[in-house]
Amino acid sequence: MNRAELVSQIRSKGTYLCVGLDTDPAKIPDFLLQDKDPVFEFNKAIIDATAPYCVGYKINTAFYEAQGLKGWESMEKTVNYIPETHFRIADAKRGDIGNTSSQYAIAFLHNLPFDAITIAPYMGEDSVKPFLQFEGKWAIVLGLTSNPGAADFELKELNGGERVYENVIRTVAGWGTTDNLMFVVGATRADEFLNLRTISPDHFFLVPGVGAQGGSLAEISKKAMNKDVGILVNSSREIIYASAGRDFASVAGQKAAAYAAEMSQYL
Amino acid sequence: MNRAELVSQIRSKGTYLCVGLDTDPAKIPDFLLQDKDPVFEFNKAIIDATAPYCVGYKINTAFYEAQGLKGWESMEKTVNYIPETHFRIADAKRGDIGNTSSQYAIAFLHNLPFDAITIAPYMGEDSVKPFLQFEGKWAIVLGLTSNPGAADFELKELNGGERVYENVIRTVAGWGTTDNLMFVVGATRADEFLNLRTISPDHFFLVPGVGAQGGSLAEISKKAMNKDVGILVNSSREIIYASAGRDFASVAGQKAAAYAAEMSQYL
Repeated sequence: MNRAELVSQIRSKGTYLCVGLDTDPAKIPDFLLQDKDPVFEFNKAIIDATAPYCVGYKINTAFYEAQGLKGWESMEKTVNYIPETHFRIADAKRGDIGNTSSQYAIAFLHNLPFDAITIAPYMGEDSVKPFLQFEGKWAIVLGLTSNPGAADFELKELNGGERVYENVIRTVAGWGTTDNLMFVVGATRADEFLNLRTISPDHFFLVPGVGAQGGSLAEISKKAMNKDVGILVNSSREIIYASAGRDFASVAGQKAAAYAAEMSQYL
Repeated sequence: MNRAELVSQIRSKGTYLCVGLDTDPAKIPDFLLQDKDPVFEFNKAIIDATAPYCVGYKINTAFYEAQGLKGWESMEKTVNYIPETHFRIADAKRGDIGNTSSQYAIAFLHNLPFDAITIAPYMGEDSVKPFLQFEGKWAIVLGLTSNPGAADFELKELNGGERVYENVIRTVAGWGTTDNLMFVVGATRADEFLNLRTISPDHFFLVPGVGAQGGSLAEISKKAMNKDVGILVNSSREIIYASAGRDFASVAGQKAAAYAAEMSQYL
């Protein structure tokens, strides 16, 4: 999905919500566990219920890898089930030397129908560039993350005064375009968004950390939006685990609808 | 495998070689492609031929993920085939917020019999700590990598004069012990090893980048060894693709034997 299509989806639906499929078999309703593939059945129901209220889904690969071969199969079935009208993110935090990053890019952006993959920037340019070679596909590079550990390196100050995450965003921006690069900026860092928009006025930001991690949707939307909206706000646990009963999907749909209703006010 | 066992393997076999299984179906001998699982058959033959000359195997997860479900299966079969006398590394470069890193740790260190997994440090403490919770298992955190992109962030200077990778190694060292933490330091950075041993005298370093990437075994061994040897030197492509014929395994064995012979002189 290219930028124009993404912006058009956001504008026409009045939402910039991304639903995170961090699906953990230990947390899904008991009655699904009798199914042959409970994780896929859960995701399918969540997708059906939330699709009208979001523009994207983010599959957190860790939860699928923790189920081994069966988990990888659930992941493949899930990404193939997500409608093409929705932006499909592999939240995989990959990144390695060039010839290895190329393999990860093939795995997620060529062999599977993901539109985007999240990338850790530590290893630099040749670790990121292989993800920028696919028409209409995106690398979403970690900028400033939502977790406490962001303080350990991302927020450290470089010689010259720039902080590491600022330097990462400024530098990585030069390796791609606003049509194939986004950055991850955590919702818990709302005070940084105004500064970030001076460094990166036009890129899309993928913003995790509302809901369970405590970020404020109103504040982020006010500070981080640009002329093309420019943000995808992700919520995972707060939506998908909103109910543990037989009504889990419809309650997830209501949660997503509530987010979408709030978002439509900010658009 | 704990540190005492690893050091004992190195001392008794006279080698600190790790063989990298970056197995690409496009590069393995044609005659294997008729097999049901060519990647596993290739790895099995390579492991049989090289096991006497190395103390570890490093599975580069990217090459398996690029084959999808079938690739994940080849990876599981491969790690289960590696003898328990050998240190089994998942070269996966993972790392995410705490609850997600925990899932990756379960995937590789609990559900699969890997002894260690490589980790990208960008997201800080809560992204690394979940990998340090398993008895006799290791997190191998990226310090200074072998690729050109290392110059983009790892070699940048922080306020106060320390470079990013030095700060990463010094900081991460405080989150674990020399019994559950190693660092990746590329063989192409031999000039940094003396400095690194002042920051981290006792940790093991996993050293990729000899062979195809051009690092010198003699120089690394001289500069990076400590009282417990303290280095695992990895070679992937130069060993496993040494011959493309029916003799691929025996030629790989000879390559590994040549490394081991050179290493035994440095021990």
